[in-house]
Amino acid sequence: MKRLLANARLATLAEGAPGLGLVEDGAVLIEDGRIAYAGAARELPAALSAGAEAVDCGGRWISPAPIDCHTHLVHGGDRAREFEMRLEGASYEEIARAGGGIVSSVAATRALSAGELAEAALPRLDALLDEGVSTVEIKSGYGLDVASECRMLEAARLLAERRPVRVCTSWLAAHALPPEYKGRAGEYLDEVAIPGLREAHGRGLVDAVDGFCERIAFSAAEMERVFEAAKALGLPVKLHAEQLSQGGGAALAARFGALSADHLEYATAADAAAMARAGTVAVLLPGAYYFIREEKAPPVALFREAGTHMALATDCNPGTSPLTSLLLTMNMGATLFRMTVAECLAGVTREAARALGLLAETGTIEAGKSADLAVWSVASPAELVYRIGFNPLHARYFRGERN
Amino acid sequence: MKRLLANARLATLAEGAPGLGLVEDGAVLIEDGRIAYAGAARELPAALSAGAEAVDCGGRWISPAPIDCHTHLVHGGDRAREFEMRLEGASYEEIARAGGGIVSSVAATRALSAGELAEAALPRLDALLDEGVSTVEIKSGYGLDVASECRMLEAARLLAERRPVRVCTSWLAAHALPPEYKGRAGEYLDEVAIPGLREAHGRGLVDAVDGFCERIAFSAAEMERVFEAAKALGLPVKLHAEQLSQGGGAALAARFGALSADHLEYATAADAAAMARAGTVAVLLPGAYYFIREEKAPPVALFREAGTHMALATDCNPGTSPLTSLLLTMNMGATLFRMTVAECLAGVTREAARALGLLAETGTIEAGKSADLAVWSVASPAELVYRIGFNPLHARYFRGERN
Ligand SMILES: [Zn+2]
Ligand SMILES: [Zn+2]
Repeated sequence: MKRLLANARLATLAEGAPGLGLVEDGAVLIEDGRIAYAGAARELPAALSAGAEAVDCGGRWISPAPIDCHTHLVHGGDRAREFEMRLEGASYEEIARAGGGIVSSVAATRALSAGELAEAALPRLDALLDEGVSTVEIKSGYGLDVASECRMLEAARLLAERRPVRVCTSWLAAHALPPEYKGRAGEYLDEVAIPGLREAHGRGLVDAVDGFCERIAFSAAEMERVFEAAKALGLPVKLHAEQLSQGGGAALAARFGALSADHLEYATAADAAAMARAGTVAVLLPGAYYFIREEKAPPVALFREAGTHMALATDCNPGTSPLTSLLLTMNMGATLFRMTVAECLAGVTREAARALGLLAETGTIEAGKSADLAVWSVASPAELVYRIGFNPLHARYFRGERN
Repeated sequence: MKRLLANARLATLAEGAPGLGLVEDGAVLIEDGRIAYAGAARELPAALSAGAEAVDCGGRWISPAPIDCHTHLVHGGDRAREFEMRLEGASYEEIARAGGGIVSSVAATRALSAGELAEAALPRLDALLDEGVSTVEIKSGYGLDVASECRMLEAARLLAERRPVRVCTSWLAAHALPPEYKGRAGEYLDEVAIPGLREAHGRGLVDAVDGFCERIAFSAAEMERVFEAAKALGLPVKLHAEQLSQGGGAALAARFGALSADHLEYATAADAAAMARAGTVAVLLPGAYYFIREEKAPPVALFREAGTHMALATDCNPGTSPLTSLLLTMNMGATLFRMTVAECLAGVTREAARALGLLAETGTIEAGKSADLAVWSVASPAELVYRIGFNPLHARYFRGERN
């Protein structure tokens, strides 16, 4: 099956190309779900496109389909009541007494089967797909026992069966200490996070291993033990690091050649340099910054200077970022973090693919890659970053199929 | 035609009711486009509902359809390039040289016919309607000559023909000085803003009169002249006031019994009290606060204390708030301005209706009013404020018709 997207303008985001890789009179040829040609329409060899079904894009812009490279999309319950109480001035204790906090997400998650968890996540996933998203990373981390952590990743795998989307899973048992392990982080790692990882990996549930390195969660030394276990299994790692304080997480991630270190509000110039050398992507999460009203933005200028790759993601989660729009995430990256339009667009396409280890497969419009494309009714790619609460998606192609 | 929305939960937002006016086992009876009954299902008189077509709402929540009471939805062009340049560090002068700033919106607006202006606004209007909005206020203010200001309001009237929506127009010629009147504000009022108002009113284009009272726009004394002209025509007034500095606009608005004063970051306790006494609604615009990164939030606590009514709106405009989501506006009202969930929900329904002088017609779910309703797939009304970039609208009723 050949399909030719003609009369289009392209933002290819190809790595070698300057800026967004713009092609004004562009065409994309799709064959068997992959990009057979992308570039100037007049340079498309006639032999290549012979027999292709032509689709007139009406001069619209085509970008790589967006990728959400950091989410906690699978979880039980919501935290709307806690949000409401906090606005009414409730104290931390009052919220905890009313059953709020991460403990409430853990309880709600543990209560659901994999099928029910997938069902609960579907509206959130659909919100992302409505903006053209091709690929979503989904973490465990609200189960905090072996069976529940596995069920979360089973649910993530189910989502990829229920919708035309690529799902990457991350084992995040080192997200928080469950109440039953209070004050016993080492034992939690020994009894849940590390043996659970081996079990989940054995069941094919794990694409990468993640953790939350923070004073209120796990130390860099504790995370190192989890990373060693991942390494022994040949699994790539990534880390929530330097969000609320300087904790050595970014340096640890770089030392292990992590795919990404995420949040990074408190990262230093040395962290940025180490991450650049290691090829560790800085995944910035403006939704959490906005929602919990952080006052320190991540050091975008340092990342720029060091040549650290920067991605953007929703961090969709019930407690600190109930956000399900990558378009809005781009606007927040620009408005709150002062990232440029080009950085924002690359951040949810090429760099997000890099952060998932998928850059050879998707994230740019280049011959050979999966035909994961978004067609937009906008006058310029900048409009995708500039508008707030507006979805100009005209069509979404995933593996060459429009859906 | 009778229709019974059954098996529903209601947030009526009725003025006398406590909080959101919640009814757990609720029903709404619609007859000839109006609400014939709203309340507990078991208290609905059988005689009243006899012969009604029943719609099972599946336990979903129904709220009044949202109302956007402050927009500049009609305008030519966009300012995405200016946004992009600013993020790249361009100076004000460089942006001006590249044709940016409000002057560019004026030029783009003047170049379009009323039909073309309506066409350009439709995607923005549709984004609002996708979230259930029943009523949109639309201002002139990018024409800045009599013919172009009238054309903007003609476009606003056209939108109400093209979509099932109620449109309220505001004459905002006192928005900015066009280049040809530089340094001659008085002459602009004498030659454009005031005579143009009379002409537009004569053509039935004006529902209210607005202005921008600010150091960079018009003084309170200048605005008073416009308000006197409005008063002579029997038209209600409203005002952009106290956004960037203290300018006396809120006090002026209260003195004229204005429908609303809008923005209000620099309003004082005396302003809040005067507005409360006058029944002038405080329309808060977190989209602009967010987009231009203001540092001073409006004094919500003072409004609360004084009993000033508070509404929320998108301020949708190309220069300072390219925002087309009232759901997101509510989240910003909570997150950025610390408004409660109840204040946010009232702010886009009952109080927005009040700010447009429409409270007798719409904005709450009460017998006698227009059946303007939104049916939501949420577990609680708080979820509408809590989520970010997520649209759980299940159905929208405008004047009793589902569409
Ligand atoms: Zn996270
Ligand atoms: Zn305005």
